Amino acid sequence: MMLVKDTVIPYQYEAIHDRIPDAEKSSAVRNFRIAAGLEEGEFHGWVFQDSDVAKWLEAVGFSLHTHPDAELERKADEVIDIVEKAQQPDGYLNTYFTIKEPHKRWTNLAECHELYCAGHMIEAAVAYYQATGKRKLLEVVSRFADYIDTVFGPEPGKLKGYPGHQEIELALVKLYHVTGNEKYLKLGKYFLDERGQAPHYFDKEWEERGQTNFFAEMRTYGKEYAQSHLPVREQKNAEGHAVRAVYMYSGMVDVANETGDKELFDACKRLWDNMINKRMYVTGGIGSLAYGERFTFDYDLPNDLAYAETCASIGLIFLAQRMLRVEADRKYADVMERALYNTVLAGMSLDGTRFFYVNPLEVWPEACDKNHSRHHVKATRQKWFGCACCPPNVARLLSSLGEYIYSANSDTVYVHLYIGGEADLDLGGRKVKLVQETQYPTENKTTIKVALEQEHEFTLALRIPGWCPGAELKVNGERIAIEDVQDDGYAKIKRNWQVGDTVELEMEMPVQRIKAHPLVRENAGKVALQKGPFVYCLEEADNGASLHEIVLPKDALLNSTFDSNLLGGVPIVTAEASRLIESEWSGGLYQADVSETYIKQPVTFIPYYVWANRQVGEMAVWIREESMS
Amino acid sequence: MMLVKDTVIPYQYEAIHDRIPDAEKSSAVRNFRIAAGLEEGEFHGWVFQDSDVAKWLEAVGFSLHTHPDAELERKADEVIDIVEKAQQPDGYLNTYFTIKEPHKRWTNLAECHELYCAGHMIEAAVAYYQATGKRKLLEVVSRFADYIDTVFGPEPGKLKGYPGHQEIELALVKLYHVTGNEKYLKLGKYFLDERGQAPHYFDKEWEERGQTNFFAEMRTYGKEYAQSHLPVREQKNAEGHAVRAVYMYSGMVDVANETGDKELFDACKRLWDNMINKRMYVTGGIGSLAYGERFTFDYDLPNDLAYAETCASIGLIFLAQRMLRVEADRKYADVMERALYNTVLAGMSLDGTRFFYVNPLEVWPEACDKNHSRHHVKATRQKWFGCACCPPNVARLLSSLGEYIYSANSDTVYVHLYIGGEADLDLGGRKVKLVQETQYPTENKTTIKVALEQEHEFTLALRIPGWCPGAELKVNGERIAIEDVQDDGYAKIKRNWQVGDTVELEMEMPVQRIKAHPLVRENAGKVALQKGPFVYCLEEADNGASLHEIVLPKDALLNSTFDSNLLGGVPIVTAEASRLIESEWSGGLYQADVSETYIKQPVTFIPYYVWANRQVGEMAVWIREESMS
Repeated sequence: MMLVKDTVIPYQYEAIHDRIPDAEKSSAVRNFRIAAGLEEGEFHGWVFQDSDVAKWLEAVGFSLHTHPDAELERKADEVIDIVEKAQQPDGYLNTYFTIKEPHKRWTNLAECHELYCAGHMIEAAVAYYQATGKRKLLEVVSRFADYIDTVFGPEPGKLKGYPGHQEIELALVKLYHVTGNEKYLKLGKYFLDERGQAPHYFDKEWEERGQTNFFAEMRTYGKEYAQSHLPVREQKNAEGHAVRAVYMYSGMVDVANETGDKELFDACKRLWDNMINKRMYVTGGIGSLAYGERFTFDYDLPNDLAYAETCASIGLIFLAQRMLRVEADRKYADVMERALYNTVLAGMSLDGTRFFYVNPLEVWPEACDKNHSRHHVKATRQKWFGCACCPPNVARLLSSLGEYIYSANSDTVYVHLYIGGEADLDLGGRKVKLVQETQYPTENKTTIKVALEQEHEFTLALRIPGWCPGAELKVNGERIAIEDVQDDGYAKIKRNWQVGDTVELEMEMPVQRIKAHPLVRENAGKVALQKGPFVYCLEEADNGASLHEIVLPKDALLNSTFDSNLLGGVPIVTAEASRLIESEWSGGLYQADVSETYIKQPVTFIPYYVWANRQVGEMAVWIREESMS
Repeated sequence: MMLVKDTVIPYQYEAIHDRIPDAEKSSAVRNFRIAAGLEEGEFHGWVFQDSDVAKWLEAVGFSLHTHPDAELERKADEVIDIVEKAQQPDGYLNTYFTIKEPHKRWTNLAECHELYCAGHMIEAAVAYYQATGKRKLLEVVSRFADYIDTVFGPEPGKLKGYPGHQEIELALVKLYHVTGNEKYLKLGKYFLDERGQAPHYFDKEWEERGQTNFFAEMRTYGKEYAQSHLPVREQKNAEGHAVRAVYMYSGMVDVANETGDKELFDACKRLWDNMINKRMYVTGGIGSLAYGERFTFDYDLPNDLAYAETCASIGLIFLAQRMLRVEADRKYADVMERALYNTVLAGMSLDGTRFFYVNPLEVWPEACDKNHSRHHVKATRQKWFGCACCPPNVARLLSSLGEYIYSANSDTVYVHLYIGGEADLDLGGRKVKLVQETQYPTENKTTIKVALEQEHEFTLALRIPGWCPGAELKVNGERIAIEDVQDDGYAKIKRNWQVGDTVELEMEMPVQRIKAHPLVRENAGKVALQKGPFVYCLEEADNGASLHEIVLPKDALLNSTFDSNLLGGVPIVTAEASRLIESEWSGGLYQADVSETYIKQPVTFIPYYVWANRQVGEMAVWIREESMS
């Protein structure tokens, strides 16, 4: 968390101001300055470049909420001043269209991200207002949302459109919460309800603008790409661009939750089940395919070609958090934890300055260079991206992590994640402070101290992770039988809590051999290791090249230790594996009736999230396992 | 062979005349009619569309050589008349440039295939002349070659260019052979010598034509794409577009052979070794990557993403045949046989009317449809292609197969392939007829009868294939110890051959378990079956879906039989394998410490070349093998 505040946010501030040497130019702030009339020049970057500024502001808001910092706040205020000046008299705010094509507003919703950028600025405004109480940006986005509401809607003369990249739906629900203005909730719901209806809006606007495309490849992507192939309530499988999908599903849960729309929530559950049970990597990555950054079909999860965009796993966390609000079932929190501790953490280097967009489960660096089908897979994190959606998304997630650890309703406090720190929670007006002390998941023990102004009765619900084979729970040193109090994966302790009550949870955290469903053909005959929420991998730095030559015997002992000298200190798993000896190979490329020689080799597994923090080399999550004898 | 004459050639005649319903339109003959002034219209098709007509004419030539057919010859003469009329007064012949851009001749050698099409028409003319003695097309191409010789060469004022797609080099050597005109040999050598020199010709012409490209993606392909990254003598690895590579290497061998250029032949040997020992599929397919239809790097041989274009394996056969002419080593014939009996035969359906362009070693049909990275892989053969290089290439190879079975020099007749039929061979002026009787490779016995006008001494060299663990050889019933007469993989019988002498060769042909080199990571832990020259595969039709769930035990008995009811009669291999039972899986997508249930399942392997002749389904060449215990 301090890494985000001290390194990531300042680094990204420099990046959006084009001050990182050798990194791809952003121009994001400069575009706002030009649109504001503060500078002369041309728009530069993607049509959605504005969202990088919004995501940075949102991350700052989250950070200031927990760690006030006058200098950072001053910088953010400066940026907000520029954003405000870039807003047009009618409330419109988008630097691409303002600078380059002012007459083409709202003519290409499918591709041009106006509503997407609006959504991110709304989220930023809400976070910044909640942290600082300052209303300037909130007023900017409210004016913008009011204007959008005059453009879109069921009334005659308004456009019946919806965003090509979903995001504004969930943002409008946030704006509704902060302002109390139901118009925003209604507009978010409208965008969802209109989506995928016939005749298709994206076809209609395409005809109207003369059958032109902003991105040439877009016409080949199909309607599934932006989840507009069917009305949202009728969608059954997680299809298309993975980030769009989980942002949309998040908005659907929000609207369903606010409006009590069971049909809409059932659609979310169905989509969740398909995605989690058939289309997710063991690292919590989603989206198997680079082309369209999308889902493909059930059980198609190639390791070396994976896309598994960092942003998609962040969106998955957004979704899981919202599902939990409606239905406190551990299965949502398990996925949230899986995505967070594996793909999302892997998305950033240990020093916080380099990022992965794509998160493969297997890497052969030479293939990334020389085989174009793996051109999207990088063996090293990059400083910044021309399309820089992921780095600021990591920042805004990690700086708001508090919102994912707990949730509360009128009589229950849920603990979803085990992360040390203090939290102030509101149980229908009653304040509860929880102080969590833990080194989880490096260690398996968590202590939670309950701080109250006065005693009162409520339920404290502690998640017992799905991976956990057994746990011990104590309140003030007295053991509680988890099986007696467990419900939907949470140990629920209902009592009249006293000031200073202490809860201790100790989870068994063995190294586990994970197998994938038999239909995941990429993993046939292979095994992955997991300990607690961490999925492990082999790296060339520890185990030599040609990781495919390593076979893990079924009965190999898996030793779990903490290596304080490695990568700043990480848990590792060591084992005695077997390795095929290349030098014994006597044939050519193909050889009949050859006998292969294997020798014993000690191997070291490291958590997936720390891979690629040393020299460039191979990596593999799924390892060949000795097959049945 | 009769399939080619009776089905493939007539079918392709209809195809190039646009008479196949539902097949992609060719327009290849129509383009010639338009260029000839016989019809009004626009050029249609690829810039190299002319080559489809040339390859069809060449196939006809080969077919008429062995099977005279007045009606077919009449059709070919009609086409040749049109071709002749399309030739321009100065000798130029290319319908694209004649119809569309007459002022742009020779301005884009890198992309526009003028010399490639010229090469194919030269090859057609030579084959047609050799079959029929008719000189019309030969005179057309001679005038064209004479004209090309005025355009290209070292002399001042001539272009210092060379083709973007190699082909004319080997064609010019053929023209030199038929005409005796050394100018053609010299021009072929010039094109090779000039290639890859600095400054780079393709850059120069690109600048001169205003930095435009015919194919947008071409600028991203790099100089290796067309093997112009280095002078040909300095090239060490098989790089770039696989068809271009093997066509060029074939031309290099031809020129080296004609001119005694050892340095050039050494380059061919080096390139051969790299290609065969590090970059070839077990099916004799080459070119791992769809993007650029190209080689990637050593040991990068993905099965499901393979490109392995049919034309590339045909070119590999051309090359192997030429290597054999210079150096009669069985290793070349082994590769020729591997490519022929696997990839090339698989390139065509059993009924001769459908074709594969891409020849994968593993297919999951749903992935071909829904995962764009496999969009080039088809689970069914197609009727014709917009870019129809492969079907007529198969036809011209199979109709000229006689040229690959034998070769002869002044004192030795080599038998490279075991295919029944008669052949007239010339041993430095002496005529020898060989009559080969065999059902190889379905059966393992071959009888060769020597027919001579009078007895004379020469060596009959019979290839003992590299895959063959033992063989028995008899002359007139009398056994000859192969080990005593074997040299470079050929059993060489030198004797004073008598009229009616009979040689019998019986080869052990066990089913063999093939392993790939340890560095081929796609095949780690997997095995392929081969029997004689046939590589085998599993198909869903015989073994059910989810072939990845099948594991072949190391000690499984492999039973080889002939199934006369299957696919018109094919050799099959059956075995008792194990299969993972999906229904026993009790977890979700990922499950800890699960025990997997395997049951025995009989499996049936079929030769690779007959795959995809039934319903659409999965196919796999490399099968998981039980790993070491």
